[in-house]
Amino acid sequence: MQSSDIKVQLIEESKISQVDFNNLPFGSVFSDHMLECDYKDGKWQTPVIKPYSPITLDPSAKIFHYGQSIFEGMKAYKDAEGSTLLFRPLENCKRLNKSAERMVIPQIPEDIFMTGLKKLLEIDNNWIPTKEGSSLYIRPFMFASGNGFHASPANAFKLLICTAPSGAYFAGKVKVLIEEKYARAANGGVGFAKAGGNYAAQFYPTQLAIEKGYNQVIWTDDNTHEYIEEAGAMNIFIRINDTLITSPTSDRILDGITRKSIIQIAKDSGIDVEVRKITVSEVIAAAQSGSLKEMFGAGTAAVISPIAGFGYQEKDYDLPELENPLALQLKKQITDIQTNKAEDPYGWRVKL
Amino acid sequence: MQSSDIKVQLIEESKISQVDFNNLPFGSVFSDHMLECDYKDGKWQTPVIKPYSPITLDPSAKIFHYGQSIFEGMKAYKDAEGSTLLFRPLENCKRLNKSAERMVIPQIPEDIFMTGLKKLLEIDNNWIPTKEGSSLYIRPFMFASGNGFHASPANAFKLLICTAPSGAYFAGKVKVLIEEKYARAANGGVGFAKAGGNYAAQFYPTQLAIEKGYNQVIWTDDNTHEYIEEAGAMNIFIRINDTLITSPTSDRILDGITRKSIIQIAKDSGIDVEVRKITVSEVIAAAQSGSLKEMFGAGTAAVISPIAGFGYQEKDYDLPELENPLALQLKKQITDIQTNKAEDPYGWRVKL
Ligand SMILES: Cc1ncc(COP(=O)(O)O)c(C=O)c1O
Ligand SMILES: Cc1ncc(COP(=O)(O)O)c(C=O)c1O
Repeated sequence: MQSSDIKVQLIEESKISQVDFNNLPFGSVFSDHMLECDYKDGKWQTPVIKPYSPITLDPSAKIFHYGQSIFEGMKAYKDAEGSTLLFRPLENCKRLNKSAERMVIPQIPEDIFMTGLKKLLEIDNNWIPTKEGSSLYIRPFMFASGNGFHASPANAFKLLICTAPSGAYFAGKVKVLIEEKYARAANGGVGFAKAGGNYAAQFYPTQLAIEKGYNQVIWTDDNTHEYIEEAGAMNIFIRINDTLITSPTSDRILDGITRKSIIQIAKDSGIDVEVRKITVSEVIAAAQSGSLKEMFGAGTAAVISPIAGFGYQEKDYDLPELENPLALQLKKQITDIQTNKAEDPYGWRVKL
Repeated sequence: MQSSDIKVQLIEESKISQVDFNNLPFGSVFSDHMLECDYKDGKWQTPVIKPYSPITLDPSAKIFHYGQSIFEGMKAYKDAEGSTLLFRPLENCKRLNKSAERMVIPQIPEDIFMTGLKKLLEIDNNWIPTKEGSSLYIRPFMFASGNGFHASPANAFKLLICTAPSGAYFAGKVKVLIEEKYARAANGGVGFAKAGGNYAAQFYPTQLAIEKGYNQVIWTDDNTHEYIEEAGAMNIFIRINDTLITSPTSDRILDGITRKSIIQIAKDSGIDVEVRKITVSEVIAAAQSGSLKEMFGAGTAAVISPIAGFGYQEKDYDLPELENPLALQLKKQITDIQTNKAEDPYGWRVKL
């Protein structure tokens, strides 16, 4: 597919002058345009770029009934020369298709996804914030638009890509609660997919944690609640002495792009990284002996979100205040690569 | 709330003459009207009954991203005198609210639900099929209509009730596959809720089973795959000799209204009913010894769906062809109560 194949319908009057780029929220101000692509008659049709505008669906559209939906989250940055930068975008496309397969949504050809995304970012180029810490949050999502109350896969789908100039996701350090009752994913379930329903399922336990004074839940396995798996909608890293530990991915854990980038950068910086199962008891013991140095979440939205302390079995544990934590070192290394302030030996940065 | 509080906007020209009531599909022909109720500013607003028509939402509406949605399934029947009958409708309302709580969707007052539903059925009364086996399938559903890419509960929701005159759900006996790899629910998850995402998560394993020549999956627990939990989107009953066994409900299993009605009717008919965990090994052993007499699914759509045989570990097991199976006896007893062909000692039938 050629960029020129994409139909473009430009907005009559840009909304950009109404936006205060110095005070951006996260993901609630939307750019002028969006990309829309329909799957019907057994294939993905030519995408259209058009003004950001409402979607109209039949009440029986399967998205409303059976949660047949998946999404991705990515960011675009501007470097000092004004070039538009993406970070490992093909990884998001591949993961979208992995999620699609599990949710019986037709896979989107990489070509359509990448060509469409690039063209959308060209058209809304001046929506990409330049302020430090800000970025253009990109939300590709696919859902069942086909109709009928029969609980079976739809025969029509939509892919949309919307963008939102956004400020930082989390402000400050978070306090987390290690989950002992609820779970986000089953063995043989859809936890590894960015399936919509996984996220709504997290709201209630997260709300209970918030009521107890925490910001987020640390997910543990649903069977024993003994293995630490994820931190809210982020992957988790735990530093014991000078070793950085993160759970291996599985069918319950999302294979995060930030996670795997951090593993690589940390290893190449000479940090001892272990990808292995880690138990709650090990973390508690490390907290008690003083060898637990850091915990942080990793994901596109917040990049790295340092954890200040955690609760477990009605007890609170504080993490030490370090001079130069790995969380911040690694966050700087990865964001410097993302924003073209440092060399990119990995070829992760994509300049449009 | 009074029935007269509900705003009504009637269709200009009914579509009913286009419908062949002798050849109804399941859930894909829709009645003239639907009920719509909005939750905003912290409360459910007055419902509106209006022509069945498309829903328009912002692309950032949380239903598209986070699967914050739940639904119910119920049926309306006409008896010989032309009265409209519902079956335990308050149970559906209560379960909708149980699902709502788990998915952080505001609960709907029973009063709004029941008054709205009754008025909708009055208005579309001539859409209720009278043919044996047919019924008006009723689909109440609630979803997050509030906007924003932040993975947190929405602040605006919609309840809709749509109806579809429908024929029988399954034709004939089904062959099922006992699942050894995939799972529909986690401990501490949302399997007990009618949350949209639970259903899309079943599509892929079901599709694999269909490719192997089966119609449905028998769900087992996600940890050992040794306990039998549900049959597709139905509860499961297993008859060994003259005992009818069904799994106890849990946070992984939906508390089906058909299931609990069958338990009651069977007990009152002098059948030995055991509500207890049942293992795959027990079922295989019973199949081998000849004591396995029947298996069937139970749910609103199909009422009772007899199972002809099952696959497990690459082996197929057939169930015997019985003269007068419990599945059919119980199906007749329950549908006779539903359609006012028999006494209803339980007070389950609601005449409008
Ligand atoms: C459940 C979950 N874990 C981890 C992540 C982190 O993945 P990524 O680094 O690719 O954004 C995400 C997405 O942001 C997620 O939804
Ligand atoms: C997962 C699941 N199990 C069982 C049932 C049966 O419940 P009911 O008898 O209330 O329809 C349903 C709904 O139909 C269901 O979705």
